[in-house]
Amino acid sequence: MALKVTIVVGNPKPKSRTLKVAETLVEKLLVPGSYELEIIDLADHTGEIFAWPSDTMAALNERVAASDLAVFASPTYKASYTGLLKAFLDRYPANGLAGVTAIPVHTGGDLTHAMGPTVNLAPLLVELGAVVPGRGFYFVAGQMDHLDEIVSQAAAEYARNLARLAVVAGAAASHSAPVA
Amino acid sequence: MALKVTIVVGNPKPKSRTLKVAETLVEKLLVPGSYELEIIDLADHTGEIFAWPSDTMAALNERVAASDLAVFASPTYKASYTGLLKAFLDRYPANGLAGVTAIPVHTGGDLTHAMGPTVNLAPLLVELGAVVPGRGFYFVAGQMDHLDEIVSQAAAEYARNLARLAVVAGAAASHSAPVA
Amino acid sequence: MALKVTIVVGNPKPKSRTLKVAETLVEKLLVPGSYELEIIDLADHTGEIFAWPSDTMAALNERVAASDLAVFASPTYKASYTGLLKAFLDRYPANGLAGVTAIPVHTGGDLTHAMGPTVNLAPLLVELGAVVPGRGFYFVAGQMDHLDEIVSQAAAEYARNLARLAVVAGAAASHSAPVA
Amino acid sequence: MALKVTIVVGNPKPKSRTLKVAETLVEKLLVPGSYELEIIDLADHTGEIFAWPSDTMAALNERVAASDLAVFASPTYKASYTGLLKAFLDRYPANGLAGVTAIPVHTGGDLTHAMGPTVNLAPLLVELGAVVPGRGFYFVAGQMDHLDEIVSQAAAEYARNLARLAVVAGAAASHSAPVA
Repeated sequence: MALKVTIVVGNPKPKSRTLKVAETLVEKLLVPGSYELEIIDLADHTGEIFAWPSDTMAALNERVAASDLAVFASPTYKASYTGLLKAFLDRYPANGLAGVTAIPVHTGGDLTHAMGPTVNLAPLLVELGAVVPGRGFYFVAGQMDHLDEIVSQAAAEYARNLARLAVVAGAAASHSAPVA
Repeated sequence: MALKVTIVVGNPKPKSRTLKVAETLVEKLLVPGSYELEIIDLADHTGEIFAWPSDTMAALNERVAASDLAVFASPTYKASYTGLLKAFLDRYPANGLAGVTAIPVHTGGDLTHAMGPTVNLAPLLVELGAVVPGRGFYFVAGQMDHLDEIVSQAAAEYARNLARLAVVAGAAASHSAPVA
Repeated sequence: MALKVTIVVGNPKPKSRTLKVAETLVEKLLVPGSYELEIIDLADHTGEIFAWPSDTMAALNERVAASDLAVFASPTYKASYTGLLKAFLDRYPANGLAGVTAIPVHTGGDLTHAMGPTVNLAPLLVELGAVVPGRGFYFVAGQMDHLDEIVSQAAAEYARNLARLAVVAGAAASHSAPVA
Repeated sequence: MALKVTIVVGNPKPKSRTLKVAETLVEKLLVPGSYELEIIDLADHTGEIFAWPSDTMAALNERVAASDLAVFASPTYKASYTGLLKAFLDRYPANGLAGVTAIPVHTGGDLTHAMGPTVNLAPLLVELGAVVPGRGFYFVAGQMDHLDEIVSQAAAEYARNLARLAVVAGAAASHSAPVA
């Protein structure tokens, strides 16, 4: 069965380079044909992001929560993820991303805020119950010419991490407790 | 083949309750007989933790780096992990825990510092290349009477997370790139 | 001359308890009559927070940047400040709150996320050039009956901190360098 | 009366460049003759840092706690302060640095970990009751030739921040509550 994969882009401007980085990461990480991809560009939903209730937003939230893998990609604003991305994640109840493997991605102008995806976005996704299989991925926007090469290295690291996690998974006891 | 599992305890006082919490977590998480466990109580090594070089410390560092699963357990000191645990981790080169599945554990007096293992210890382990399969685990010391029950819930969550990660691992492309 | 003081509330719901907590903090911290207070309830501006340009938002941003003291108050969403508050702060250029003394306030249901204002909101305000005179203030919503008493203690700590900072200020060299 | 100023260096190697950076920062920040400076190089105390009790360590802890201004300087180890510095700070009781104005300094090889002093060391000092008058200061070790110039800019920013804080201090109510 195909893996459900979603990219969520938190840039208030649509069709950004940040989206391109996330798409490339998915391509490099997964075997072609093994997944179906949906892209959620939050720039298309700024008018509804604070509406409550909202069928549109609820459907988007649901889609991400049902993903096997979700990439959350944001430009660096004030050393962290955007308010737009946070506003989308704020719509979830506690533990709303339980069981989702999540990769945090930030793009930025230079290395000054390279710690952002690891110290800001990753703990946020984990708070929602997601699991982050390694470091957050930070991409310096000026390196778009080397996008494939840089993203391939990051993808290889995530793939190795996932393979190692699968080994531990094999020895984990099965628990009958319901998902919290 | 048996899983290699290590517990590293960062309490300057030996044989602490923090160690007990970590041991219980390993017991609840893994199938009995599927692993071999080694315990490193850093309280036994305070005299050598800043020695350089040190064969003893190098052997301990190596053992942890070669683990499939490592639990890093620390009492909460100043809202974070202890300096003793950090001093042990400081001995690693960059990426020194690559491929290790790591669970951060803090114990504390009340919930005030419950975010500590997720926002302080987890990013530190991730910086070293380890992968944390979910939230950090925070245990309120006054709950020792309910240790089994509370730890079982946490273990069930880690087990579910690992199972979901294994699904994604199955679709990850294999990369021939050498481990960084 | 009267001190310029602003409260910025990041709750998507208007007239929240979070606002009440911030108002009480200002009352307890400052000498009556020594300041003029403006309140910005971001719940009134969700429709424009992503509009660019926006005269309304620009005026609000300017007012806060021109404050001597600003209290940034948010309910705890996912262990951190709200996306609404972040979206407001994202509108500033780098260093946009230079020279503002800023107090981060979070309200929450229990102590689980008590570290939030200190590890999440404070570094965000500091990134913008603001100065935070001590810990972030976390208020447990169930304690509204003891609001005055709890806030008075926090205010006393900020007042003592400010007095001590003033001593150091007296010995600081004057620099002719322009504000970055 | 002269200001009490202390530099605490967390480098396990003595007389480091990190110490030089901290000394320069104090020189640039304060008016000559307005202060008395003491330097604590923790490299000289690795043998006693985990001893309990220890008269030597207690005297050092006391000196720092009695300072008007303290600069805490550490090389970047694993994206954060050293375990040695943390071990020194772990010796304090809760709120042990109340009333101290503290400047966090990290040195590092490049900008990758530039967020470290602001997101790791600053919250740690704040947890102990200290007040940090602005951003943490991160110095790229390869820039030693421009040390004076770079540090002067940082010092100017701290001086401006302190001057602005003094204005707010002037309007703060006096509280008779005892220091917590």
